[in-house]
Amino acid sequence: MTDRERVAACQDRLDSVDADAVVLFPSTDMQYLSGFTDEPMERHLFLFVGRTDGPLFVAPEMYDNHIRHDSWVEDVRTYADGEDPLVLLEHAADELGFRGGRVLLDDRMWARFTQDFRDLFPTTEFGLASEVLEPLRLRKDNAELDALRRAGEAADAAMDDVRDLGEDAVGMTEAELAQFVEERLAAHGGDAPSFAIIAGSGPNGAKPHHRHGDREVQSGDPVVFDFGTRVDGYPSDQTRTVVFDGDPPEEFETVHDVVREAQQAAVEAVEPGVPAEAVDAAARDVIADAGYGDEFVHRTGHGVGLDVHEEPYIVEGNDQPLEPGMVFSVEPGVYLEGEFGVRIEDLVVVTEDGCERLNHTDRGWRA
Amino acid sequence: MTDRERVAACQDRLDSVDADAVVLFPSTDMQYLSGFTDEPMERHLFLFVGRTDGPLFVAPEMYDNHIRHDSWVEDVRTYADGEDPLVLLEHAADELGFRGGRVLLDDRMWARFTQDFRDLFPTTEFGLASEVLEPLRLRKDNAELDALRRAGEAADAAMDDVRDLGEDAVGMTEAELAQFVEERLAAHGGDAPSFAIIAGSGPNGAKPHHRHGDREVQSGDPVVFDFGTRVDGYPSDQTRTVVFDGDPPEEFETVHDVVREAQQAAVEAVEPGVPAEAVDAAARDVIADAGYGDEFVHRTGHGVGLDVHEEPYIVEGNDQPLEPGMVFSVEPGVYLEGEFGVRIEDLVVVTEDGCERLNHTDRGWRA
Repeated sequence: MTDRERVAACQDRLDSVDADAVVLFPSTDMQYLSGFTDEPMERHLFLFVGRTDGPLFVAPEMYDNHIRHDSWVEDVRTYADGEDPLVLLEHAADELGFRGGRVLLDDRMWARFTQDFRDLFPTTEFGLASEVLEPLRLRKDNAELDALRRAGEAADAAMDDVRDLGEDAVGMTEAELAQFVEERLAAHGGDAPSFAIIAGSGPNGAKPHHRHGDREVQSGDPVVFDFGTRVDGYPSDQTRTVVFDGDPPEEFETVHDVVREAQQAAVEAVEPGVPAEAVDAAARDVIADAGYGDEFVHRTGHGVGLDVHEEPYIVEGNDQPLEPGMVFSVEPGVYLEGEFGVRIEDLVVVTEDGCERLNHTDRGWRA
Repeated sequence: MTDRERVAACQDRLDSVDADAVVLFPSTDMQYLSGFTDEPMERHLFLFVGRTDGPLFVAPEMYDNHIRHDSWVEDVRTYADGEDPLVLLEHAADELGFRGGRVLLDDRMWARFTQDFRDLFPTTEFGLASEVLEPLRLRKDNAELDALRRAGEAADAAMDDVRDLGEDAVGMTEAELAQFVEERLAAHGGDAPSFAIIAGSGPNGAKPHHRHGDREVQSGDPVVFDFGTRVDGYPSDQTRTVVFDGDPPEEFETVHDVVREAQQAAVEAVEPGVPAEAVDAAARDVIADAGYGDEFVHRTGHGVGLDVHEEPYIVEGNDQPLEPGMVFSVEPGVYLEGEFGVRIEDLVVVTEDGCERLNHTDRGWRA
């Protein structure tokens, strides 16, 4: 779909959920509809889409050129620093006719701005933009899948480069390894890391949210590498756990086998109509049966699109049926505090009769 | 102030603004009170502070160790993926007794979470956490000023290194210059860049929000360098506009003189009791008198603390009187579209009788 078609689809949905307008803040939703976004900021910058009117931007004057360069949206209304942006919000409300109606605000809009809308439009009812945008973003079209595949290829190539370090990685710090990964992702065509690169060595691998630090890799250390890069705005996200040299801790091989089997079972569980939580259960059952249930402390996966974490979440309690075109991670892990962690992750896209992995590198632990 | 003293001061203010609790989302406000923060995330992670009860965290189980490591707060209540976090919010509401009362939400809390609070607690009135935290954060204490000074020194040293490139910078791309800056900031003790480094050469310098691209610096190009780094969590932020080699465009020297004079006038206008907008006017008058008023398209500055952009904003319409301990940028600029831009920026801290600059490098344009 082109951005214009996405806006048209959004407008259709506004009608069907009985809402009058959606108002987006700098976010991936704004990017999805307009082609423009930026970091969330303290200045008022919004995209308005009404059922038939809009899209239109209200933005600081200094963003005018930037928006016109990145976006196809032609109606950009600006205010200078020192001018009151709320006047422009009032005009937009009058033109889109949403006073007294129902308006869907960006799910990530800051409270200080939702407060402005509530104060300015006391007779308006507010909901969340995901009501109309999440169903659109959930199933990726061919152009999106193409970008996700290429992002996956760049991550795979960088992971192969990591593996090729072999015993040279021993003595490198996690920060140096992360820097190496960042350079290799760029060399393979990635635009920017999808998130802060995780290189967790030895006991640091047992902290699922450790990023990287000054610890030097020792012979026999398992090292968890979790990273990705963006291509055309879409991110990859993969994890491998490798031992560069020497003998790993005693229990490691058993744990790695269990996690690998769990990941395989979860990937095999993916097909249209299966509830998201069944994929989580497939991985969790393998790990629980092996006696490590308490050490698998997170959900099995998360959707991936313009956001690295988005719907569908692969978690107990989410009975949403999988549909072709959905993309998510399958990443079970086992964490033995103070010792080591193991996580193996691929992205998959749901197909008509199963799924396609977007990551293809060796899932074994020997570098 | 220690974090505990900050929480006590926050509780005093809750009392004085007649609110029952403040609820923070991962943000610099959370960091300010607890020592812990992370990127905003899709999982429920909140810090509750009541008038007498709390502070307490509600957090995903996988963040438990991370919070306990970074924060002095001992009451951390966790839920596993797949468990319902809203139950923990209800318990917190009962213990802190804020149902039917008034609760101040993090100014940057995402709408999807403010919506949860509104749905869960329909009899609660909601406001913004800045009501109690902004006055606390506005005046920096000695430990904060010490971190800001050291961050300024690291940025100054990196800017000197940039200048020392001299004619070697000609032929480098903006991206290469930005990479050089990042390395020098780290070499001088910075923890991480305060924001994406701006290296805008020639006409790119005329786009105030250009970051860096593939353009190669040519002889005679003015290049705008806007960057900073964090030390102990506090960021620096400075800008210099330099010409590495050759003769700059005809009008450049005039414009640079005007901006430098405007920046000096604004710095000299800073003292306790002066309204923030008077500092903006001091810079703007110089630039307008020189005939470049329409090319100075942004406010003169912004407060700097844990956030790179925070109160006080140095902008027309902000009549807030300056107080000792406030820290903000003074950064007038003139942008000639398609030709070049000039911006000169220092951070200043308001003192008892004027201000102290936190940046001290050469403000001239010859590298």
